[in-house]
Amino acid sequence: MFYFLHTQFGLFRLFDYVTFRAAMAGLTALIVGFLVAPKLLAVLRHMRQPERDKRLMGDLAKEGGKVPTMGGLLILVAVLVSTLLWARLDNPYVWAALIVYLGMSAVGYWDDYKKVVLKSADGITGRQKMAGQALSALAAFALLAAVPESRTKMCELWTPFVKNPIVSAESSAQVRERLMQGEDFRRLKPEVQEAMVSARTPIFKAPSSGVATALVLAAAVALFALVCVGSSNAVNLTDGLDGLAIGCVITTALTFGVTAYLAGHREFADYLMISPVRGGGELAVICSALLGGSFVFLWYNAAPAEVYMGDVGALGLGGLIGAVAFMINQPFLLVIVGLVFVVEALSVMIQVAYFKRTGGRRIFLMTPIHHHFQKKGWPVTKIVTRFWLLSLLCAIVGLITLKLR
Amino acid sequence: MFYFLHTQFGLFRLFDYVTFRAAMAGLTALIVGFLVAPKLLAVLRHMRQPERDKRLMGDLAKEGGKVPTMGGLLILVAVLVSTLLWARLDNPYVWAALIVYLGMSAVGYWDDYKKVVLKSADGITGRQKMAGQALSALAAFALLAAVPESRTKMCELWTPFVKNPIVSAESSAQVRERLMQGEDFRRLKPEVQEAMVSARTPIFKAPSSGVATALVLAAAVALFALVCVGSSNAVNLTDGLDGLAIGCVITTALTFGVTAYLAGHREFADYLMISPVRGGGELAVICSALLGGSFVFLWYNAAPAEVYMGDVGALGLGGLIGAVAFMINQPFLLVIVGLVFVVEALSVMIQVAYFKRTGGRRIFLMTPIHHHFQKKGWPVTKIVTRFWLLSLLCAIVGLITLKLR
Repeated sequence: MFYFLHTQFGLFRLFDYVTFRAAMAGLTALIVGFLVAPKLLAVLRHMRQPERDKRLMGDLAKEGGKVPTMGGLLILVAVLVSTLLWARLDNPYVWAALIVYLGMSAVGYWDDYKKVVLKSADGITGRQKMAGQALSALAAFALLAAVPESRTKMCELWTPFVKNPIVSAESSAQVRERLMQGEDFRRLKPEVQEAMVSARTPIFKAPSSGVATALVLAAAVALFALVCVGSSNAVNLTDGLDGLAIGCVITTALTFGVTAYLAGHREFADYLMISPVRGGGELAVICSALLGGSFVFLWYNAAPAEVYMGDVGALGLGGLIGAVAFMINQPFLLVIVGLVFVVEALSVMIQVAYFKRTGGRRIFLMTPIHHHFQKKGWPVTKIVTRFWLLSLLCAIVGLITLKLR
Repeated sequence: MFYFLHTQFGLFRLFDYVTFRAAMAGLTALIVGFLVAPKLLAVLRHMRQPERDKRLMGDLAKEGGKVPTMGGLLILVAVLVSTLLWARLDNPYVWAALIVYLGMSAVGYWDDYKKVVLKSADGITGRQKMAGQALSALAAFALLAAVPESRTKMCELWTPFVKNPIVSAESSAQVRERLMQGEDFRRLKPEVQEAMVSARTPIFKAPSSGVATALVLAAAVALFALVCVGSSNAVNLTDGLDGLAIGCVITTALTFGVTAYLAGHREFADYLMISPVRGGGELAVICSALLGGSFVFLWYNAAPAEVYMGDVGALGLGGLIGAVAFMINQPFLLVIVGLVFVVEALSVMIQVAYFKRTGGRRIFLMTPIHHHFQKKGWPVTKIVTRFWLLSLLCAIVGLITLKLR
């Protein structure tokens, strides 16, 4: 947003650096978050308690009253302000990320609103939720597909441990042309250049025209929706104990912030043999803003929680993380880094499937799996810390896999 | 330790890579830690309860009995086994780190032993503790000073934000000679080479002979002892709430693991303009082992704690962190990254000084400062999580300062 100043003042050259803007985005989100928090929490606390209960409970309402929810709005405000200030707004990835984040947060808000304000016991139906999430993902993908460069990138498929893209539209001649833009590369011996070109040539070349292209695009949008919606619901399932979900969001945002920066930096991406994404560094700015907002939220959400994130938080955050992972061609890295989310979601699926198949028997005492350990007698704070440790370990392992190609 | 196999088998080439050995060191420490933990905890629990009390308390001893201490032994075993397996044992920094760690752990053990087993109320005196700590630091420094290369490095002084060393023994000709060993550097234009050489030439050149050298060496050993003993005591003061100290040790070990790796990698060190330390990467192996051991310890130390680290843990860990920070010429980075430890120690000093000066008035409700917040009514788990957040933020800021030169 400040970018227009850049041509006029020398100092604003700093704004060219993604690292500088990412640092400022994190700081801005922290400051905005702490400024907004007291006021927002007061409003949420008020929403939580209907008038008729207040008289009855008196001072008790203050002390032991229920914890307010919808704290995800705090993160939303912090991330939004910070991103609009510090990310380049001519970048399709930034807008796609914001569309998914805002869209899924709106779905969550709808659900929370029905439960908290309208006192509906169930909130919105599963079908409404899924439709809203899918719609957000489709809208974001439509934007990505409208820009030729991001459309091409989104039709690529990369996996960890493999240096070649599984599918991409680049022929080996195009790969060579791209690599030749790097000064260091041009200085290499021809045989080394050839080896690197072949290492970067896709295993399956995506077709460049006709029905096949449409099919690839359809596969891409399906995978995008799957990753975003899956991640959104997985974070929502994880959000069941004080601080649990947001702690894992912090380690995940940290990892994908670093990865997005590396993917957006051509030399680093080529050195690590990960997918280079021009402009992907802007997603590091968003991750940094997310980190700042999450810090503030955990400040208040730490056990014993003063506020919960609610669906408006969990659905939006999960969707954002999924979108970022997909857009830098690292959807599978999310399975490693977000293993806690994956395990939480899988535990529910396994429980339900087993229950149906056996006609009523259970594998876990209760799902999502954090409740299993709760039933087993682990104290809540211990479960949360142990899940955080697991999440941190997965983040470290995830970053190491970037080097293993 | 496996290094001798290297010349015989191709596969063992992997052992050349610091990153590979660091990863394996972390994994080994994790495994050793989890294998040793149940047995060690049983022994410590036994030590905690004298025979005569057991009959009286009956089952209560199991349930509500006091939490055993000296859990730091768990980390010690994990780090020791892992380091001996995966670090190069011909490296003076590795041995110096182990001397400080073992020496200060022994001092802590002595204190814990007097309190737990001999039921002395006070443990060892402050003077005995300080003498033991200083002795450990001196022994480690003697080893570093005995090896010419590490002696030269230890007499260098570097600070954050400044690319030149404040003091070092290298003349600008020697700097040029060292840089010329890098292929990339030789390819640069002469004027760029000159600029880089001047950027790496010390502000004050350390004298190379006579009394002055002895003075520089004396200043170095004094600073080394100050950093190690100060860090050791600061971690010990921080260790007052479930999980608090070890969580901050984890973020610090992570940061210094990365920094030690970068310092030990000549190209990265020159690119970032931090002090290059040949063989410093081995300290990343130790940090990784420390990380693994700390993970296991926090698993059991998470609120509500099943074991405390005790002085054997806190003094040793603090000393080790201080030694690593000093040996990669980053003692001042420790002030940023370990800000929580610094603030905890400062709070005590300020409180005592103010108390003496005003004849009995206090600034904080209680020190170390985490007790101040406890008295103010913050729940323990909230204080711990918030201090962890602060510690994570400091780690990120610390890593960013590496780029700001």
